[in-house]
Amino acid sequence: MSKPLILVTNDDGITAPGIRALIACASELGEVLVIAPDSPQSAKGHAITVADPLRIEKVDIFGEIEAYKCSGTPVDCVKMAKTVVLNGRTADLCVSGINHGSNAAINILYSGTVSAAMEASLDGIDSIGFSLLDFAQDANFENAMPFLKQIIQEVLEKGLGTTKLLNVNIPNLPREEIKGIKICRQANARWVEEFAESTDPWGRKYYWLTGTFENPDKGEDCDVFALEAGYISIVPSHHDLTDYKAMDGLKFLEQTV
Amino acid sequence: MSKPLILVTNDDGITAPGIRALIACASELGEVLVIAPDSPQSAKGHAITVADPLRIEKVDIFGEIEAYKCSGTPVDCVKMAKTVVLNGRTADLCVSGINHGSNAAINILYSGTVSAAMEASLDGIDSIGFSLLDFAQDANFENAMPFLKQIIQEVLEKGLGTTKLLNVNIPNLPREEIKGIKICRQANARWVEEFAESTDPWGRKYYWLTGTFENPDKGEDCDVFALEAGYISIVPSHHDLTDYKAMDGLKFLEQTV
Repeated sequence: MSKPLILVTNDDGITAPGIRALIACASELGEVLVIAPDSPQSAKGHAITVADPLRIEKVDIFGEIEAYKCSGTPVDCVKMAKTVVLNGRTADLCVSGINHGSNAAINILYSGTVSAAMEASLDGIDSIGFSLLDFAQDANFENAMPFLKQIIQEVLEKGLGTTKLLNVNIPNLPREEIKGIKICRQANARWVEEFAESTDPWGRKYYWLTGTFENPDKGEDCDVFALEAGYISIVPSHHDLTDYKAMDGLKFLEQTV
Repeated sequence: MSKPLILVTNDDGITAPGIRALIACASELGEVLVIAPDSPQSAKGHAITVADPLRIEKVDIFGEIEAYKCSGTPVDCVKMAKTVVLNGRTADLCVSGINHGSNAAINILYSGTVSAAMEASLDGIDSIGFSLLDFAQDANFENAMPFLKQIIQEVLEKGLGTTKLLNVNIPNLPREEIKGIKICRQANARWVEEFAESTDPWGRKYYWLTGTFENPDKGEDCDVFALEAGYISIVPSHHDLTDYKAMDGLKFLEQTV
């Protein structure tokens, strides 16, 4: 039997330690094809590049593994992988990350990592976004490796069924302190942003986005709760943003001329 | 009673005809504050700017109306409006658009217009993204004006209740052919992308994203169906991406160490 084809991407860029860890893990389980942004693309959400041309170039930084850097966003990378690189072949799985930093709760909206996986899922490909709760460039990805390998292996074997996308977040803990894996819902948490104000060398004012994460959601079934309890959180996620429960209550807006 | 405060933004940029139409409409119903990107930001999704500073500058292009251009994405604009411009005041409503082009179905994921409205909704502000199914710079926004005014007025009066975000799309039809307004779910349609391949003046290959929209979803309750039937579609939308129906089926991934 031929090995499954695993598409690997990320949003921190092709030289990030996180994608190297994910490639190491995925290449034990299948044939790996890498296509990732040529520069950091954090917080690009589901952005695509429509007003500018895109470049793609083969790189030789992962040994035997076929890899490309792309000038676009994470979602652009997946679109190019499918159309320009795979050229008729279909990936069996898409894994994105490992992101340097959390994509739990509301962070999924801003996340290039999960958006890239979501883009692959739109074509019916089982897809997983992986994130470690450590922003540092030298984050320790080793602790989570056995769990990641297990998740990828089980998804390859059993498939994701009706859903096509998992948002996986990993607590930043030593291996022996990781308590296990939980299926969760997205916590209803939020960012309270602030802007650091300063002045550039030419005397013009500028602002830099910052903020604090607040979680009023105390549900024990949500991803933030699981992570704080030492579990890896898995949120099955989808691209249907319809708020079905609200539909009936808005009938007052309907009319027929 | 003081007038409601309406925050207006978009993704086509502060000089786009669509935002001018929306401002004209909103200013009949409340006090308007405008903050929009200083350049086109189509298809930026929920992207935010974290690795670069942001600029904001007052502009005097809408008569008496207070307006600002911002160097960031549509979502950045909303964050800056709240934190830097409103400075303690809270908008009663956020309207985004009118987008030049459809944000129905899967387009919501890529849409800067709807993402800006969603960002405002995260703070509990009733928010509406408006889009007209015409990409043209000289699109005719007049046909839809009476409907838009009615939607904004009813939302100001009655509020959106449990949901906080509406994705409103408007068919590109003469006023007398618009059949009315329908509450819908998001169609499960997709883009089949293609990349136009070409060579730059220096002989390097580049790619430009293009594609065709395909809608296999034949449900008569979806936005694409309503639009094709001549109705304005309203999809109540939210930021919880959890695929609740899939949770039970993924229990095989759970474990406790």
